Amino acid sequence: MGPVMSLLDRLLGKPLSTGDEGDHHIGLASGIPVLGLDALSSAAYGPEAALTLLLPLGALGIAHVVPIIAIICAILLIVYFSYRQTIAAYPGGGGSYTVASENLGPKFGLVAGAALALDYILNAAVGISAGVGALVSAVPVLLPHTLALCLLIVGLITLVNLRGLKESGLIFMVPTLAFVGTLGIVIGVGVVKAIASGGSPTPVEPLPPIPPAIEAASVWLLVKAFASGCTAMTGVEAVSNAVPIFRKPAIPLAQRTLTAIIALLIVLLAGVAYLCKAYGIAATEPGAAGYQSVLSMLITAITGRGVFYYVTMGSIVAVLALSANTSFADFPRLCRVLAEDRYLPGSFAERGRRLVFSNGIILLAILASVLLVAFGGITDKLIPLFAIGAFLAFTLSQAGMVAHWRKVRGPGARRFILVNALGAIATGLTLIVVTVSKFGEGAWLTVVIVPLLFLFFSRVNKHYRSVGAQLATIAPMAMPERQDPIVVLAAGTWSMMTQRGMKFALRLSDEIHVVQVKTETSTTEDFSDNWDLLIASPARRARIAEPKLVTLTSAYRQFFTPFVDYVVKLSDENPERDIAVVIPDLIMSHWWEGIFHNNRGAVLRALIRSRCSDRVVVISTLFHLHD
Amino acid sequence: MGPVMSLLDRLLGKPLSTGDEGDHHIGLASGIPVLGLDALSSAAYGPEAALTLLLPLGALGIAHVVPIIAIICAILLIVYFSYRQTIAAYPGGGGSYTVASENLGPKFGLVAGAALALDYILNAAVGISAGVGALVSAVPVLLPHTLALCLLIVGLITLVNLRGLKESGLIFMVPTLAFVGTLGIVIGVGVVKAIASGGSPTPVEPLPPIPPAIEAASVWLLVKAFASGCTAMTGVEAVSNAVPIFRKPAIPLAQRTLTAIIALLIVLLAGVAYLCKAYGIAATEPGAAGYQSVLSMLITAITGRGVFYYVTMGSIVAVLALSANTSFADFPRLCRVLAEDRYLPGSFAERGRRLVFSNGIILLAILASVLLVAFGGITDKLIPLFAIGAFLAFTLSQAGMVAHWRKVRGPGARRFILVNALGAIATGLTLIVVTVSKFGEGAWLTVVIVPLLFLFFSRVNKHYRSVGAQLATIAPMAMPERQDPIVVLAAGTWSMMTQRGMKFALRLSDEIHVVQVKTETSTTEDFSDNWDLLIASPARRARIAEPKLVTLTSAYRQFFTPFVDYVVKLSDENPERDIAVVIPDLIMSHWWEGIFHNNRGAVLRALIRSRCSDRVVVISTLFHLHD
Repeated sequence: MGPVMSLLDRLLGKPLSTGDEGDHHIGLASGIPVLGLDALSSAAYGPEAALTLLLPLGALGIAHVVPIIAIICAILLIVYFSYRQTIAAYPGGGGSYTVASENLGPKFGLVAGAALALDYILNAAVGISAGVGALVSAVPVLLPHTLALCLLIVGLITLVNLRGLKESGLIFMVPTLAFVGTLGIVIGVGVVKAIASGGSPTPVEPLPPIPPAIEAASVWLLVKAFASGCTAMTGVEAVSNAVPIFRKPAIPLAQRTLTAIIALLIVLLAGVAYLCKAYGIAATEPGAAGYQSVLSMLITAITGRGVFYYVTMGSIVAVLALSANTSFADFPRLCRVLAEDRYLPGSFAERGRRLVFSNGIILLAILASVLLVAFGGITDKLIPLFAIGAFLAFTLSQAGMVAHWRKVRGPGARRFILVNALGAIATGLTLIVVTVSKFGEGAWLTVVIVPLLFLFFSRVNKHYRSVGAQLATIAPMAMPERQDPIVVLAAGTWSMMTQRGMKFALRLSDEIHVVQVKTETSTTEDFSDNWDLLIASPARRARIAEPKLVTLTSAYRQFFTPFVDYVVKLSDENPERDIAVVIPDLIMSHWWEGIFHNNRGAVLRALIRSRCSDRVVVISTLFHLHD
Repeated sequence: MGPVMSLLDRLLGKPLSTGDEGDHHIGLASGIPVLGLDALSSAAYGPEAALTLLLPLGALGIAHVVPIIAIICAILLIVYFSYRQTIAAYPGGGGSYTVASENLGPKFGLVAGAALALDYILNAAVGISAGVGALVSAVPVLLPHTLALCLLIVGLITLVNLRGLKESGLIFMVPTLAFVGTLGIVIGVGVVKAIASGGSPTPVEPLPPIPPAIEAASVWLLVKAFASGCTAMTGVEAVSNAVPIFRKPAIPLAQRTLTAIIALLIVLLAGVAYLCKAYGIAATEPGAAGYQSVLSMLITAITGRGVFYYVTMGSIVAVLALSANTSFADFPRLCRVLAEDRYLPGSFAERGRRLVFSNGIILLAILASVLLVAFGGITDKLIPLFAIGAFLAFTLSQAGMVAHWRKVRGPGARRFILVNALGAIATGLTLIVVTVSKFGEGAWLTVVIVPLLFLFFSRVNKHYRSVGAQLATIAPMAMPERQDPIVVLAAGTWSMMTQRGMKFALRLSDEIHVVQVKTETSTTEDFSDNWDLLIASPARRARIAEPKLVTLTSAYRQFFTPFVDYVVKLSDENPERDIAVVIPDLIMSHWWEGIFHNNRGAVLRALIRSRCSDRVVVISTLFHLHD
């Protein structure tokens, strides 16, 4: 274990004591990158998702992006006020799951939990694929390696998260600052140029040609573009879920963090939409040769392809890829809450070596990788599945807050109810629009998965309740009399290893059955001939009960079945006795030496566990080999 | 286990009793396909391998194939007489390994074993890739799926072999008859046409154009072509290895089978070589678009692309692919012999459910698949690695036979020595030629792998001898006194499961330590508060020794380290006592329920095995859950 442990230490950092936890709480400056990356980075794919839908309209389609983004920003403001109230009401972390469970009942909570779980997984996949999309826009030779790059980034993020939160905060601070700063400059310069040129600025470098219109604008198409653009809103719930990881005073800090994140996001979204219209930037075909992200074209048009272009694109790549980190912070936390309520295996509630919930992190990494592989790492294919989970959770959370204020009452309750109801209605309507307009393109999958997850959680809970009922006892224990078990020794060839097992058996009981199984082609020696010399005579001389030699034969070269049959029979014939099966084990000095020896002990143990009654116990004696 | 077992039964057939073995012995009619496929099918790739080397000579190169094949047939005859003698001298199976071990010493035997093992693996890969090469010649749209087809065929052959030998014989009889029959007709018709046309027949359908000469003939090129053509000789040792699987009288039956195989092979090789020259058939570039196998062109030229073409090609595909079966019969048998001599893990010597050596079959399937993937399923790339192993084994085997006759003496010994010495010299010279001429193109890999295998076998043997020495004992056992172990009960939350462990502990010993590990974020309940109620009071009332409650704390949320530390300390403090660690285990009614519960028991058992002394034993008590 030594070298493995030290490698783990190197990769993941030394184990942290539970007392170290306080150091890991965050403030405004680290809260924006850690909890806001997801929301902010949406600015990089939300407008592009809408523009991609407008592609069939040709050059005329571009202008439609401005009203679409305007509506999205309006909904965003409503959601903002709604979540501000949630932060204040749930300082312990007002995740949609908690809010819906407490106020609408556990069933609604579980629906919210299922929706969120799916949303986090998709967010990780979309963040990473969009980041790689930006990377291949800047460095087109990498385009064929899209999927491999996606998986590489999943691996890196997983590692960072397994190391723990504080270092993550630091790692994510620089790219976020660079992202907001450089994109802010691009937008500022772009807006000045656009105004100076009377609304029709000339790109510094020529843009790719816009394909001709092949369709006229229709309400259905605009609704679909809006639905795709709504992905820009994902991630804003992260702050309200994570209030407890803020420094004291947590509530105002969390609220200020949320304000900063939403304000920045609205500036970025509005700026990008306006400038796309002003410069006439259309999307390019995703996944095809010549693909370039909308932001890449926008920066090229405004500042040209100089050093600044590459710095800005670099920060976009970093921020998009790392936006998945919001999921890596929230998904394990959601799993923990579900595990504590017995809807997921208990191991999700146990902190790992570095105070993080390692199991949730690893599960997320696996599921996001599966999604990326299934969709080839192309953002546009993931978008239709996305946002539904988020909006379902938004709606349930805000409906829950309405119920909360109606219970709590008190001063201002009427105003609180109004704000949250408005939030619930806005996100609920958006949910319906997104689900209907995207149903055929992948939203159906979400509509199938969320109920399946709900069922799974319910089944897990039922299992735990059944197990709990069977295991629970607080009765004073009935003290049993001392009683020798009947010992069955599993013997192969007679050896020092068998002798070790025999020695323990002789110390334990006066009734010992030494069982050897003879198969006709067996490589193990029959020791009936030596039995008297090895065991029987010494026992007689020591005047102790003579152990019994049992030789079973098997025509099918199967060692196990006759042996276990014998144990079952013995146990049935002696209903008042414990049966102790002694399996002598050989311990190698190197693990790889295990391949040279059969694993009969392990197979035998498994068979006894599954076939024998509770009165049978399995005893492994050890015999260590030296080099 | 039920459904898994019945699926296994369906796929592999029901387990066979060891008594069924006799039914599986074979005669001449089944011996030719089962043991001769490899040798016979070499006719399909041997001449082609030589012709591919002659490609740079253009049309003028083709004629060289006739003398090359003539030399190969001459060597084949020498080898034939040599192996006839081996069959008579080793009715128990005169594999090169056995012959070299017994007569030249175990080291030479091991070299032969390593060479053969590699050769069998390569033979399986080459047979299958050449079969798929014939298939894509007939059905060119399959060319891009070459590798996938190769792996599919590996899977099918593995399945057939895991089912057992007799059925394999039947399955292989029809394709072999069809192969020898149809190819015989093609050669007959071709020879008649060639003679009738005065040696220059006109192809029925035009042949692909022959690329222009880009090189002049050189001795080096002809030697390389000869070396490639020598792959046609692989597989002739199969009969002498497998004498014991023949019906009685085994020796004449085996000798007649060998005669039939060699005669057929020489006819096929000579016919193909002569007709290639007569029709002017050159090889096509392997792996490139437009690839067509030499036999495909030959059949097209002689009979056109009618029904007969497809029947013939079908039988070639089947026979080539199934020729790998020789390896699937011989490789596991070689592994068994090596395992019986303790050069491989013992599991290779144990027959599986269907009386076959399943482990060897599975290992071969894996290694052949690795080779196929590494070389993209293209025969031409595998050829340079091939044949070296075979010729090394041939040479050692025949040198061993020379030594054998010198020891045995008796009438005719002088003639026997002469025949085997001739065989050893002919194959030894061929070995040198092949190794030198193919060194740069892949033969070096064989030159590296054979010594590595030799070293591996030696290390395994050393390990077994060391283990054997440490385990061996035939001394009468010293009978120990009855003595209670010190029991350490690993306790989590107090439950029916823990109570089962406690009950066994109380029956076993008066000295019980109940150890619970408290971690600060632990989800298990501390039961110190209930200790008196649950255990201490009942023990006092029953007037038995009160068990001791030990509460360990861990700051790193690690349950295991403090527990094992405690056991180690206890064991050190009580050098005369056994320490019995009782781990209460929960048994689910369904295996998949295991994911809902932690596997602390298994981890704890592993840690105790690796860290504790032989005086510590591990006891698992069972508590079964109901649905």
